[in-house]
Amino acid sequence: MGKKEAKDILLEMKNKAELMVDLAYSSVIYDNIELAEEVYELEDMVDELNDKLQKLVIRDAIARELEENEALAIIQLAYCAEAIADAAREIADVELRDIELHPIIRESVLESDEVLVKVKVLSSVLCDKKLGEIDLASNTGMWVIAIKRNGEWIYNVDKDTVIKEGDIIFARGAREGVEHFISIAEGREKNI
Amino acid sequence: MGKKEAKDILLEMKNKAELMVDLAYSSVIYDNIELAEEVYELEDMVDELNDKLQKLVIRDAIARELEENEALAIIQLAYCAEAIADAAREIADVELRDIELHPIIRESVLESDEVLVKVKVLSSVLCDKKLGEIDLASNTGMWVIAIKRNGEWIYNVDKDTVIKEGDIIFARGAREGVEHFISIAEGREKNI
Repeated sequence: MGKKEAKDILLEMKNKAELMVDLAYSSVIYDNIELAEEVYELEDMVDELNDKLQKLVIRDAIARELEENEALAIIQLAYCAEAIADAAREIADVELRDIELHPIIRESVLESDEVLVKVKVLSSVLCDKKLGEIDLASNTGMWVIAIKRNGEWIYNVDKDTVIKEGDIIFARGAREGVEHFISIAEGREKNI
Repeated sequence: MGKKEAKDILLEMKNKAELMVDLAYSSVIYDNIELAEEVYELEDMVDELNDKLQKLVIRDAIARELEENEALAIIQLAYCAEAIADAAREIADVELRDIELHPIIRESVLESDEVLVKVKVLSSVLCDKKLGEIDLASNTGMWVIAIKRNGEWIYNVDKDTVIKEGDIIFARGAREGVEHFISIAEGREKNI
C-alpha cells in the first residue's frame, strides 16, 4: 500500500532531519569536521527520500488512492523536513568553512535548556548494554545521537545499539541531567 | 558589548525555532488550531529578532568589533534558525488548512523515537511544584513544551514554571518514558 510506504519515508525524513540539526550544532560546538561532513551525507539521503516520496504520492494521487488535499499535505510535510535538513547543512557549513567563532558566540549554541555533550565511556554500567535495556533517555533525560568507536562513526543509533568501553558518545538532553550522565559514563556513578 | 547581545539574540532565535517545530508537529498530531496559530506568532518574533541581529552584526563589523568571517558566520547561524522557524510555520499550515490527514500519515509524525504527548494534570506530586524543583526532564526524559491553563497558553516554560492541577501539558520525550510520565501527571505514580 502506498500510504504505508509514504508514512515510512516521511518518518525517516523527519528523523534524519532532526538528527542532522543535532549533528550540525555538535560540529560547531566541538569544532568537529567529521560530524559536519556526515551532515552533508545525510542531506543527500534526505533529498533522495524526498524525490522518492514525491513520485509515490503523485502516483497514488493519480490512482485515486490519496485525496488531492492529502497528497499536498504529505508533500508539504516532506518539504518541511527537507527545509530543516537544508538548514542543518548550512549550520554544518559554518564548521566546514573553518571559521574561528568567538567563544561567546559558540556558547550561544551551548546555552539552550537542551545541551549537547561529548563523553568517553570508561569502565561503567553502560558497557556492553543495549540502549533499550538501560532506558538511558528516560532515566537521565539524555539521548545518544551518535557514537564514535575505533575511529568509525555510528549515527543510526537505536534501542539495539550496544555501548562499548572506549566509545565516544555525543548526546543531547536536559542541562540538569548532564552531570549525572557523565558520572555514569565515566563509571563514577553505578546507578542509572 | 555587541557580542554578548548578539549571543543572546542568537540563543533566543534557536530556542524559539526549536519550540516552533515541536508546537507545529503537536498541532498536526492533536488537530489543535491554537497551537498552529501560536507557531505563526512565534515566527513573527523570530523574523524581528533576525532583523535586529543582522543590524547589530553589521554595525559591529563596521566598528571592527567583529571580524568579517565571524560576522558572516553569525548571520548564517541566524539564517538557519529562521529557516527552521519557516519550516515549522509550513508544518502548522497543514493544520491551519484543516486537511484531514489519513491516520497512517498522522502516525508517521507520532512514531519517531521522540514522541509528543498531551496529558491533563490531576491531583499528583507535580502540583504546585516548579519544573526545576522536580527535574522532570532528567527523571522522566520528558520535556514540557507548553501548558494550557484556564484556557490560556503558556509557551515560555522554564525551570521556574509552577505546575497546577488541571493544567494540560504538552511534552516531548523518549517513547519509553511516556507511560511513567502520564502516571505521574495523573497521580497514579507518586515517585518521579
